[in-house]
Amino acid sequence: MEQQPQSAVVLLSGGLDSATTAAIAKDMGFDLYALSVDYNQRHRIELEAAKRVGESLGVIEHKFVKLDLSTFGGSSLTADIEVPKDRDQQDEGIPITYVPARNTIMLSLALALAETSGSYDIFIGANAVDYSGYPDCRPEFISEFEKLANLATKAGVEGRHFGIHAPLMELTKAEIIQMGISLGVDYSLTHSCYDPTPEGLCCGHCDSCILRLKGFADAGLKDPVGYAK
Amino acid sequence: MEQQPQSAVVLLSGGLDSATTAAIAKDMGFDLYALSVDYNQRHRIELEAAKRVGESLGVIEHKFVKLDLSTFGGSSLTADIEVPKDRDQQDEGIPITYVPARNTIMLSLALALAETSGSYDIFIGANAVDYSGYPDCRPEFISEFEKLANLATKAGVEGRHFGIHAPLMELTKAEIIQMGISLGVDYSLTHSCYDPTPEGLCCGHCDSCILRLKGFADAGLKDPVGYAK
Repeated sequence: MEQQPQSAVVLLSGGLDSATTAAIAKDMGFDLYALSVDYNQRHRIELEAAKRVGESLGVIEHKFVKLDLSTFGGSSLTADIEVPKDRDQQDEGIPITYVPARNTIMLSLALALAETSGSYDIFIGANAVDYSGYPDCRPEFISEFEKLANLATKAGVEGRHFGIHAPLMELTKAEIIQMGISLGVDYSLTHSCYDPTPEGLCCGHCDSCILRLKGFADAGLKDPVGYAK
Repeated sequence: MEQQPQSAVVLLSGGLDSATTAAIAKDMGFDLYALSVDYNQRHRIELEAAKRVGESLGVIEHKFVKLDLSTFGGSSLTADIEVPKDRDQQDEGIPITYVPARNTIMLSLALALAETSGSYDIFIGANAVDYSGYPDCRPEFISEFEKLANLATKAGVEGRHFGIHAPLMELTKAEIIQMGISLGVDYSLTHSCYDPTPEGLCCGHCDSCILRLKGFADAGLKDPVGYAK
């Protein structure tokens, strides 16, 4: 008897990590519902990248949900605060680019889409190694959200198990890139920079660019996206 | 030494339960930040009620966040599905008015506002007695979310404790109304109906109206809002 393919929801930001996560979910045999949240991010070019990545993976459906997180302020990614450049990655503490409760909100929205699309698995590109100090990118946060999901939902109450998957959690950026390459991810479609130029070139100096460039260098590869001089 | 008043975030839907919850939080000495989510609900008149309730309570600030949950479908409160009328309240199972992952999403947004407003307490009008069978209105859901909030946030990581309060959890609708009256809540400002007339009158026959009318009757009081004949 042939097994019916299961569907999963994957959060696609347009960045390198979520593209790799989606490729892993697809490789595991899931049909994908992609979810991208338009949270009025400064780097809106990410959403175009998310759309391209979703298309390249042949997702069943790609939902874009508008949610204006800048209402809450509190982050240089949504508010009018300068993105820090060439910051020492070893700095203590949580950086100004932290978006309050972001992954809690993203997973909640993914949970809603999972319930309405009949999916019982959610994939998120959270990573605890190169995670820039965000509390909602830690393994204990992900497993706590899984417990919550199973209490919060009609499906959970009726005995179906929701799984929250963060397959990149323990990988370095170089390992993520190597895994993505082995799964055929086209990283030229992705976008990671917190502060791109008006032409869409990456700045090369924000936390995200520094991590990405180091990841490609450590993997012995050249990043296919363009950087400002 | 005088104690500095603490602030709390309260989710205000415009309904009877959230108005009472906000009055309880105020009575406990909290300064209030109100949060209302415009989730493209069919009964948009609720948001006007939320605004009136917030004003009557003298909140510090009232944030309205737009989030189009109808993108996900799956509920007669957001999608084009008929609201059930005169349903037997003792029916088994979760009703069609269930909005997928609603309270998970609402609490996530409240958590973001709590972090950016320097609040460590969140109030929600969830109720397990007259709760119409929603899984995310149970005490175990609320305590699980509290655990998540303390793992998810910068403040939680830095040792501050987030409290999630659902003070109505164990009260009947009649007890909620009696408590609200004792705290001076003006229920004429609130709105509960899932399917109001174009003039804003309550239908009197949806789950929400039936619970509300029974609550006022059990409390020996007359509901001050208008009902369609």
